[in-house]
Amino acid sequence: MKIELLLTGDELMTGDVIDSNSAMVADKLMACGWELTRKTTVGDKLEQLIAELQRLSQAADVLIMNGGLGPTSDDYTAQALAAAAGKPLQMHPLAMKHVEQWCAQRGFTMTEASQKQALLPAGCEIVANPVGSAVGFCLTLHQCLVICTPGVPVELASMLEESVVPLLREQYQRWCNAQDVSEMAPVAVKKLQVFGLGEAAIQTRIHKLLPDWPAHIVLGYRASPTLVDVKLTTHSLLAQHEVPYWCGRLRDILDAHVIGEDDATLESTLVSALAARSMKMVTAESCTGGRIAASITRIAGASQVFDAGLVTYSNAMKVRVLGVSPQTLETHGAVSEAVVQEMLTGALDASGADVGVAVSGIAGPEGGSPDKPVGLVWLAWGSHKLMQTAALYYPGGRDLFQTRVTSVALDLLRRFTLGIEASPCYLHDRKFNSGPG
Amino acid sequence: MKIELLLTGDELMTGDVIDSNSAMVADKLMACGWELTRKTTVGDKLEQLIAELQRLSQAADVLIMNGGLGPTSDDYTAQALAAAAGKPLQMHPLAMKHVEQWCAQRGFTMTEASQKQALLPAGCEIVANPVGSAVGFCLTLHQCLVICTPGVPVELASMLEESVVPLLREQYQRWCNAQDVSEMAPVAVKKLQVFGLGEAAIQTRIHKLLPDWPAHIVLGYRASPTLVDVKLTTHSLLAQHEVPYWCGRLRDILDAHVIGEDDATLESTLVSALAARSMKMVTAESCTGGRIAASITRIAGASQVFDAGLVTYSNAMKVRVLGVSPQTLETHGAVSEAVVQEMLTGALDASGADVGVAVSGIAGPEGGSPDKPVGLVWLAWGSHKLMQTAALYYPGGRDLFQTRVTSVALDLLRRFTLGIEASPCYLHDRKFNSGPG
Repeated sequence: MKIELLLTGDELMTGDVIDSNSAMVADKLMACGWELTRKTTVGDKLEQLIAELQRLSQAADVLIMNGGLGPTSDDYTAQALAAAAGKPLQMHPLAMKHVEQWCAQRGFTMTEASQKQALLPAGCEIVANPVGSAVGFCLTLHQCLVICTPGVPVELASMLEESVVPLLREQYQRWCNAQDVSEMAPVAVKKLQVFGLGEAAIQTRIHKLLPDWPAHIVLGYRASPTLVDVKLTTHSLLAQHEVPYWCGRLRDILDAHVIGEDDATLESTLVSALAARSMKMVTAESCTGGRIAASITRIAGASQVFDAGLVTYSNAMKVRVLGVSPQTLETHGAVSEAVVQEMLTGALDASGADVGVAVSGIAGPEGGSPDKPVGLVWLAWGSHKLMQTAALYYPGGRDLFQTRVTSVALDLLRRFTLGIEASPCYLHDRKFNSGPG
Repeated sequence: MKIELLLTGDELMTGDVIDSNSAMVADKLMACGWELTRKTTVGDKLEQLIAELQRLSQAADVLIMNGGLGPTSDDYTAQALAAAAGKPLQMHPLAMKHVEQWCAQRGFTMTEASQKQALLPAGCEIVANPVGSAVGFCLTLHQCLVICTPGVPVELASMLEESVVPLLREQYQRWCNAQDVSEMAPVAVKKLQVFGLGEAAIQTRIHKLLPDWPAHIVLGYRASPTLVDVKLTTHSLLAQHEVPYWCGRLRDILDAHVIGEDDATLESTLVSALAARSMKMVTAESCTGGRIAASITRIAGASQVFDAGLVTYSNAMKVRVLGVSPQTLETHGAVSEAVVQEMLTGALDASGADVGVAVSGIAGPEGGSPDKPVGLVWLAWGSHKLMQTAALYYPGGRDLFQTRVTSVALDLLRRFTLGIEASPCYLHDRKFNSGPG
């Protein structure tokens, strides 16, 4: 089944926005065993959209169109699809009801602009949008199922899951019947989330330690600033049966670097680990400015394990809120082992939490010195009884620094909570060595 | 001049990689006054690449191809272009020299794979790659200049600047001569960042209050969960001269909803406003879990205005860290006007900051009740002298709730700091009305 994607939006043509929607769609399709054949991206130009709809609907079995559903004058999707199909635009009663309800729930007055979102090509079917004001819709054109979806990522995500995948399954069944194919190609994807090892390092370990890796379990890697997502893709039921075994061997060689499977994150794993042990945690942040706390509390149920996060950005607040001694600050400076130890002690005392992490570093771009350059961070983690510290070095810009320090803090606390004794390699690789004097 | 982009790579089709190269190319083109007409993305499939090269070179004046230049077996660009042009692949002496030098400089042995990078379509010209091992190359096909560029972002960036833009200028001159056009179309873009009004509401205001909006200043909108980006695009110097006037009129009708121009954000505007007044701020967060503090401290120079953020997730911590009275918590509950007032008072006292914001709400999915549903938040903001409060309602999921509450908190504090008296419409639109009893 040929599935194409048509993305629309001037912002995608001008470089203002980096398209993440198409990766979201592709990811979802892959998880169901389908692959995208081609992506075409054009601006908000009616004539061009009509021409692309004509062309692509003749080439594909399914065309997913993304963007242009909104209420404004540069949202042309409904108009373009109507023109391509030679149908008029009509007020769709179900779409209208959706817009009315959406406005009513929020106490908004319905404007002419919002009503426009119910003007759809005659004969189309509604694709529910559980989140946003504009419904999706679909229409068959040249035997191709054209599905129009919203450009707002959260809306697209919920629509993909709830409505688009079921529609694709139906179309796939039709396609199979037409092709005389009896069953779906069982593409299956298993993921391992890995922290603290890069793509190349993971690959090298696999080549060295698992030379007998089977060709029918295809390995893929996706690196982000935090985790590397190792994907095991299979294209047959037979291969799929072998995945648990090979996944286990992969876990063995990647060891404590494996955070979890599928959609596991550092923070979700940490929250689960603490919850399983009925433990509470606290954070004392300087250079990460609340990002560690925000990561934890993004997880539903964080309140079970997270009591407080103390963001002490200034020295005065380190003293007032965390009880760091002015003497220690004076002698060692805010970015020092002694200060993060006192920060963590103060946070544990203030909160009564079992474990915690404290960070103090120089995020930059200002504030560095030869002794303590931008990119240096001191971390303390653990409990009153067993507190560990490290100085690490992450140059590369403020945002990346904050992201990496946050991840490392979460990982160190995860390891501590799980009782993993082995020291992660980044404590050596990223170790900060101050010069003499 | 029609410029198209052909992106290639299996990783772009599977969702493993989010394409940022095309935004980089578009950005570079826009800065020179050119717009991309279309982007086409396909996987590493030779036949498909040949077909796309044939089709797109007949449609465009310039086709920038990105990816597939590397040494591995799934890098098909040279082979595909040679086939599309009906030319053989030849060892290109300059390309060979580049590969040799690149390997020599790094002490690498030249492998067969690296030599493959010098096998190029006969008759092509080299496009220098100052960074990577594979040179770029270009060839005219169907009167379209096809430029092949590397997929590695840093390599693409330096090649764009140093080689691709000059090539485009030459091609543009040829195109102008052929069209009898004497000068470049100066595309220019101005942006206004708007908070608290949706796309539809902004457009309605413009239609109503600026009916004489000129057609040659094209309006575009990009909505994110926080800001709406209103873009004014012009295609002539004459129109560009009118932009400041119309930008001013737009600011008048959108009023305090305008956060700033171009890349302004809520947090950068707030930090600037506080810094200009030598004021300090503090946050007291419950349901946003540190996200407000993290937003502020993302800004370089935040330490000038931000002393501390106190994330008191549990009731006990609200009492211990912020001095909220247990009696108030008992009587009114954690999500109440009285508690956010005491949280803000406690945070201002603890930090000595001039202004601050406190939030307490129900992020969900658990913890809601008929009286206090998931999505309800109480905010208090201002100073000891002038403290304001509001109860707002943001259903729609935990992540969206935290994002919206964070934005609203930043905006309310921005308005307070700037002395804006008018009450923003979301205080009415999103007002939480508890039922009777």
